[in-house]
Amino acid sequence: AGNSAAGKEKAAACMACHGQDGKASAPIYPNLAGQQQDYLEAALHAYKSGDRSAGQAAIMSGYAADLSDQDISDLAAYYSSQTP
Amino acid sequence: AGNSAAGKEKAAACMACHGQDGKASAPIYPNLAGQQQDYLEAALHAYKSGDRSAGQAAIMSGYAADLSDQDISDLAAYYSSQTP
Repeated sequence: AGNSAAGKEKAAACMACHGQDGKASAPIYPNLAGQQQDYLEAALHAYKSGDRSAGQAAIMSGYAADLSDQDISDLAAYYSSQTP
Repeated sequence: AGNSAAGKEKAAACMACHGQDGKASAPIYPNLAGQQQDYLEAALHAYKSGDRSAGQAAIMSGYAADLSDQDISDLAAYYSSQTP
């Protein structure tokens, strides 16, 4: 299972676009705060696997490429626990 | 620009998974309420174009296939205007 505290540490690289509190810094980036945890994990795996890679997703593919399964679980736990 | 009222009409097909109020009916589906409008449009276009088509996305590709650009704008306006 994901560890939200560990996810907060790992989210440093995410905050530029997704905000410290999970609210996107620009309208083209998704808000993550309060998002469904399972969905966040599935989306991160899709970026990592290349299922999502075209256009806007190319940025995320780079970030997700070196995330471990545990990193993905922790990040999903962290952002899903934020207040939308 | 998207028309939220028109989007509400068009969202009937979305509600089974994404909820009437944009809160997903299952943890594997994303919450849409209060999501960034531009992001929602980009995501719907990615499902429509097939950029997102593997795994979980296959369901959405089917729904998005026959959406017009205006439908996409209206749906994005509707769900982004919902309270998260």
